[in-house]
Amino acid sequence: MTSRFFRALAILAATVPALTAFADEGMWLINKLPSKELKQQYNFEPTATWTEHVQKSCVRIGAGGSGSFVSPDGLVMTNHHVASDAIQDLSSEQHDYMVDGFYAPTHEAELKCPHMELTVLQEIQEITDRVNAAVKSGMSAADAFAARKKAMSEIEKEARERSGLQPEVVTLYNGARYDLYLYKRYTDVRLVFAPEAGIAFFGGDLDNFEYPRFNLDVTFLRAYENDKPAKVEHYLKWSKAGPKEGELIFVAGHPGRTQRLFTVDHLRFLRDVQLPLTLSCYNQREIALNQFMGRSEEYGRIGKEDLLGIQNSRKAFGGIINGLLNPRLMNRKMEAEAALREFVQADPKRREKYAAGWDKLSKALAEVQSFYTEYFMLESRRTSLGRYHDLARKLIRAADEKRKPDGERLTEYRDANLPSLELDLFSEAPVYDALEQLRLEDGLIRLGRHLGGEHEAVVAAMGGMDAGSRAASLIGGTKLKDVAFRKKLYEGGTAAIAECNDPMIQFAQALNPMARALRDKYEKVFESVEKEAYAMIANAKFEKDGDRVYPDATFTLRLAVGTVAGYRDGSETIPAMTDMAGLYARAAQHKEREPYNLPKRWADGRNKLDLKMPFNFISTNDIIGGNSGSPMFNRDGEVTGLVFDGNLHGLIWDFQFDMEKARAVGVHSQAIIEALRKLYGAGKLADEITKG
Amino acid sequence: MTSRFFRALAILAATVPALTAFADEGMWLINKLPSKELKQQYNFEPTATWTEHVQKSCVRIGAGGSGSFVSPDGLVMTNHHVASDAIQDLSSEQHDYMVDGFYAPTHEAELKCPHMELTVLQEIQEITDRVNAAVKSGMSAADAFAARKKAMSEIEKEARERSGLQPEVVTLYNGARYDLYLYKRYTDVRLVFAPEAGIAFFGGDLDNFEYPRFNLDVTFLRAYENDKPAKVEHYLKWSKAGPKEGELIFVAGHPGRTQRLFTVDHLRFLRDVQLPLTLSCYNQREIALNQFMGRSEEYGRIGKEDLLGIQNSRKAFGGIINGLLNPRLMNRKMEAEAALREFVQADPKRREKYAAGWDKLSKALAEVQSFYTEYFMLESRRTSLGRYHDLARKLIRAADEKRKPDGERLTEYRDANLPSLELDLFSEAPVYDALEQLRLEDGLIRLGRHLGGEHEAVVAAMGGMDAGSRAASLIGGTKLKDVAFRKKLYEGGTAAIAECNDPMIQFAQALNPMARALRDKYEKVFESVEKEAYAMIANAKFEKDGDRVYPDATFTLRLAVGTVAGYRDGSETIPAMTDMAGLYARAAQHKEREPYNLPKRWADGRNKLDLKMPFNFISTNDIIGGNSGSPMFNRDGEVTGLVFDGNLHGLIWDFQFDMEKARAVGVHSQAIIEALRKLYGAGKLADEITKG
Repeated sequence: MTSRFFRALAILAATVPALTAFADEGMWLINKLPSKELKQQYNFEPTATWTEHVQKSCVRIGAGGSGSFVSPDGLVMTNHHVASDAIQDLSSEQHDYMVDGFYAPTHEAELKCPHMELTVLQEIQEITDRVNAAVKSGMSAADAFAARKKAMSEIEKEARERSGLQPEVVTLYNGARYDLYLYKRYTDVRLVFAPEAGIAFFGGDLDNFEYPRFNLDVTFLRAYENDKPAKVEHYLKWSKAGPKEGELIFVAGHPGRTQRLFTVDHLRFLRDVQLPLTLSCYNQREIALNQFMGRSEEYGRIGKEDLLGIQNSRKAFGGIINGLLNPRLMNRKMEAEAALREFVQADPKRREKYAAGWDKLSKALAEVQSFYTEYFMLESRRTSLGRYHDLARKLIRAADEKRKPDGERLTEYRDANLPSLELDLFSEAPVYDALEQLRLEDGLIRLGRHLGGEHEAVVAAMGGMDAGSRAASLIGGTKLKDVAFRKKLYEGGTAAIAECNDPMIQFAQALNPMARALRDKYEKVFESVEKEAYAMIANAKFEKDGDRVYPDATFTLRLAVGTVAGYRDGSETIPAMTDMAGLYARAAQHKEREPYNLPKRWADGRNKLDLKMPFNFISTNDIIGGNSGSPMFNRDGEVTGLVFDGNLHGLIWDFQFDMEKARAVGVHSQAIIEALRKLYGAGKLADEITKG
Repeated sequence: MTSRFFRALAILAATVPALTAFADEGMWLINKLPSKELKQQYNFEPTATWTEHVQKSCVRIGAGGSGSFVSPDGLVMTNHHVASDAIQDLSSEQHDYMVDGFYAPTHEAELKCPHMELTVLQEIQEITDRVNAAVKSGMSAADAFAARKKAMSEIEKEARERSGLQPEVVTLYNGARYDLYLYKRYTDVRLVFAPEAGIAFFGGDLDNFEYPRFNLDVTFLRAYENDKPAKVEHYLKWSKAGPKEGELIFVAGHPGRTQRLFTVDHLRFLRDVQLPLTLSCYNQREIALNQFMGRSEEYGRIGKEDLLGIQNSRKAFGGIINGLLNPRLMNRKMEAEAALREFVQADPKRREKYAAGWDKLSKALAEVQSFYTEYFMLESRRTSLGRYHDLARKLIRAADEKRKPDGERLTEYRDANLPSLELDLFSEAPVYDALEQLRLEDGLIRLGRHLGGEHEAVVAAMGGMDAGSRAASLIGGTKLKDVAFRKKLYEGGTAAIAECNDPMIQFAQALNPMARALRDKYEKVFESVEKEAYAMIANAKFEKDGDRVYPDATFTLRLAVGTVAGYRDGSETIPAMTDMAGLYARAAQHKEREPYNLPKRWADGRNKLDLKMPFNFISTNDIIGGNSGSPMFNRDGEVTGLVFDGNLHGLIWDFQFDMEKARAVGVHSQAIIEALRKLYGAGKLADEITKG
């Protein structure tokens, strides 16, 4: 799921004008909105009530998506592709809800999603001073990093005890600010409605990041409390009119990660080291998955969710590299950096405080490069060896970490994060051994290809066998499929792990020390320096640009301000909205060959629909991966759309906002209602939403 | 075309017995057959007449395939996948012979293949002493390499003048022997018959390298001389009985390249450097091609041949890496190497002559590794930037090289090779700009990803633009599509090149000096040392193993001796032959979804066929990529089959023969006749073949 939320820099047309429009730039903190600009440009002044209402209507989903409450009974709107992990998990060879869609006409028919978690932001506290107070003068970057981590853990612990809410210390401006966020958590989440993947993702990988589009990329979930639909005070009402071209429109959601503050050297590292390596692994997996899925219909079904995620990331990361390879774009970054450094050099005080930031970072980048491949292969979540190994490693590390004081643990094993960990560890979501074989076998081959056959980790991983046999013997022998077995190991701690003879646990045990050491080294050599350096650079930027500075995305709640607007591409004008007639035209143009084949309900239901009904539309809101599923709404807080993508031009937003051709892409609010009522027989759900 | 001929090491089952069966190992030189073994094992003694007949009936096709004459009127049998470049070139949006197949019932209807070349070996002379005499004692490896090259050029020149044939000095045993081969050339080659790609490559990428198989991977061509079918004295007659299980069977063809003499360090280099890099590029291209081909039916058509080649190599190279990652297999190689080195060390004379070979090579490998990525990206044929850039570079280099004495030129520009070069340069084969855009754009991105955005070559290649715009502007601006323009440049030499303002020529001019320098460095640092070191190692092996030693494959004529035989795989028995009923069963099992959809002629024609007719079969003949299209024949020299693949287990033959499960895969001779007569209305062609 998570991989579908990254957006990247696109191949740009040959003529990019030098001017950058700042008008709609900004992923604004909900507690620090750009009031002056909003007033000047849109004559809009958000009240405290408006802001609180938006904040508490918005939902963060799992590890990478957004959503919103749209009824008082806990109904949540998000994207199909945000919920598709769950839809896939709820499917089986008998009921493939990915292919056929799903609708529960009653609460009783709603299906509980395995290990899905919703969180709603309740409260924000600034804690920069307290975090920084933990750092004593003369500390090394690594010691300062550890000291801050310890302080954050204490702050979280206190907050949890005080409020009963889920605490999270958020590092903003890459370390120049720290805030404490407190969330309400929902862990009983049920599936209410999902369309067929064929219409949610019509045009598939080929049309992904393209526009015009025709996707009903929507899913409705429901939050439950005490086995009953959650009663929520804050939810967004539905707009009767839908979005209008030229109209002010808001997006509130959880952009995952941007790199707008990144130095030129850091962007080079991305372009020349990190992303090529990532893509090389993803390409290998995409091809292996395609082979796997071709072997039978059932394999096609169980591999699909992995494939969608991989393809999405491949297109996005590929776009980022291509953008970074475009000399004109890098030149703009270089100019901006030179201007900021000149500003710093121009004043002795600023020079003393900030000048070292860039060089520190460049040095750390050079150092991390020497072991980055190993780190990436053995410790990144992007190079998982499959579900069983993930479980095994988490069980081993949980046992190790839980013995330490909270402040010294790896972040994901801090007390504040154990509920999420346990939700994952004990999930009943199905595990398909055939798919696990593919993931592990391909993962072993990936290790070998990138580290070389003689690398200590490869020798340990292969265990004297070829990759296929090794994977088969580990998967055939492990008992980790059994949730009770996992619970026993989790509760048994280090003693249970030490005496466990499960082959997957032993396999994970063999790799874990190397991976852990690389994690430590990475944090020491790079992450701690990165924090320190960017705090300097961000503070220099504050001094230079003042309030125009917003923090890079951190998968926390942000508000983006924009306009519903088409654009010109060369001699072509791309209109702001598509309509339902366009869907049928595009399918016909491709003779309905996959991925342009319409689900039966849509092919048969054409005459039931108002073909002039708008379907998808674009706007200038500043979004990025993680914003998928974000509500789009008007100044009255009424839903007019649902973000599901950015266009190819918008991929550059990862490190530079530009609104010449870059756009957010949304599903029109009325298209959702039209489809629910006329094709899905889901009038009851449409009523709940529109009467909400 | 060429890429379909590489075979690689497969994922092996968990239980590989230590024993190696040598019985059928060997790609024997046609002038040095293993007479003793043939007599002992098969009670067969090839006469000089038999050998000459086989030699002159065999045909080498283009840069990577095999075939044979099968009628006195120059009819040539080969694989569909060997001829598919030509079939694709002869197709258009109006006539897609790849999809529909092709049959010319009369000579007049036969279609001339653009730039296809057939060569037939006429004569072999041993010239080791003369080549080595050029090397004076005390010369460096690089100087010795240059001196040998000069001697070879002189030998070729003399031979051409004397015989009028096409000369080729062949380096055998990686430099321990040199032979002069003389070929008769045919450059007017016409297409007679091709089945639909859907039956030639039934099961597509998914079934590639698999067995059981059901492929009619055959195509018939005809050699012409003076605009008339060539009259040939030697051709293979057709067997009435076809192959029998357990029967002796021969394969004569042109295995492209094996690495059986490779040292362990060299295999490590393959496994850890060369093949991962190659695969990373191929994976990127496969995905880009899939995207491209999805955009329209016509793009699907024009991209198909590239895709097939890439997918085939990806599967083969992937198999080799996986095999080399299998510790048991590497251990066998290490043991064999240790035994040979011990044999060398055991005698002072041997030690002096041979012992340095391994260390020299290891040192050269370490050195080449430091610039291998650059060399591969800028100078390998595997990283072509598309047809226009290939043409531009060849024109530039031809102008440069032709000014030098023959012996100092790059091999491909020696006088002996100019006819092939000109055939390619002035080919009228269609060039599709949409496909060229994909090749060049993806090629630029590949350069950037692997060399980094600041690399001199990348900066020059991008020309200040993004990859897509750069490719569009070069392809839009070049006149190289025009054969007359190419001819003018070729004839105009360096002056014409220097004043040419064609943007693709200028682009190639910018990259060429870097690429040329890398080529020189590679030859100096690696190739020359490689030759010297392997000559030592091969001679040591001769001393140890005597006549049991055959040279690694060199894309020259070899005879492989084997048996028609199934095998056991775990608890399963894989029978030697499949039948036509099996084809229909496999299509049904996959609900005829692509790539298991039958061409209409086959779907409709089921009742016309004898379903018990054997279709494909396997044998233990020692083959490798390049053998595709080789005739399989009995002791009487009668065709019983046609090699088109090896199974997955056979991929290990690249560096180690083994016949436990590894097999050559062929089309049964009678299946070809059955299909020609009953489905294709090609009785006349069947008559020509069987009456031949």
